Amino acid sequence: MTFKALESGTKGTTLPTKQALDNLCFNSQRLIPAIAQQHDSGEVLMMAWMDQASITETLSTGRVCYWSRSRQAYWRKGESSGHVQKLIEMRADCDGDTLLLLVDQLGPACHTKRNNCFYIAIDKDNARIIADPEKTL
Amino acid sequence: MTFKALESGTKGTTLPTKQALDNLCFNSQRLIPAIAQQHDSGEVLMMAWMDQASITETLSTGRVCYWSRSRQAYWRKGESSGHVQKLIEMRADCDGDTLLLLVDQLGPACHTKRNNCFYIAIDKDNARIIADPEKTL
Repeated sequence: MTFKALESGTKGTTLPTKQALDNLCFNSQRLIPAIAQQHDSGEVLMMAWMDQASITETLSTGRVCYWSRSRQAYWRKGESSGHVQKLIEMRADCDGDTLLLLVDQLGPACHTKRNNCFYIAIDKDNARIIADPEKTL
Repeated sequence: MTFKALESGTKGTTLPTKQALDNLCFNSQRLIPAIAQQHDSGEVLMMAWMDQASITETLSTGRVCYWSRSRQAYWRKGESSGHVQKLIEMRADCDGDTLLLLVDQLGPACHTKRNNCFYIAIDKDNARIIADPEKTL
């Protein structure tokens, strides 16, 4: 109801974060998809998943923490690679079922060392790799 | 395996689209999340879901077709609103579990008539509406 009610709200309308988070639409695994976008260039870096605790931690620390579905554990982006994401702004969408994270990404976002994860372009005939891994200086 | 094998591929490597689509990672509802981004401005417009048939249709027609989970039906974006999305390029991510659609969006992308769906900014204290609906001229 909260997100439906916000549809007609005007710019500047606020509500407590707790109320917004309590009304987010999590899936059956209690996760919500989160898109990470480089805040200044607009580059879409990756998509991953968050639960309520990782959202709260991210808002509190300013460093993005996801929930890793493959490892079934919290994933503080960059904790092993050093490629941390500093949160600039978190946004929710109209239905409260997707998050957009404006971030400042240190180093490549992708585990393949490409700048972003979306490096395979697909047209009706072919899929094609469009980026190489960053070379380490 | 296909997407894992592509990790070490170099720019320009291609494979048939059918092989790529057959190896995408769909969820238990046979859906994959698709992020729509305005191709020139970089604005992230919305996120929705696609199945294999909607992907194939989108690649074939050049107009974005999603699967509406709420209506349980194909959703040819703009078929009622006129706010169609022309596909510029479809991309898959490293794990083959998310799509990025570079589009040319006609009119507002959001059903609330805002330019994009991500109009609620959340910080640790408050959630705040940051955009008003577009005024009709």
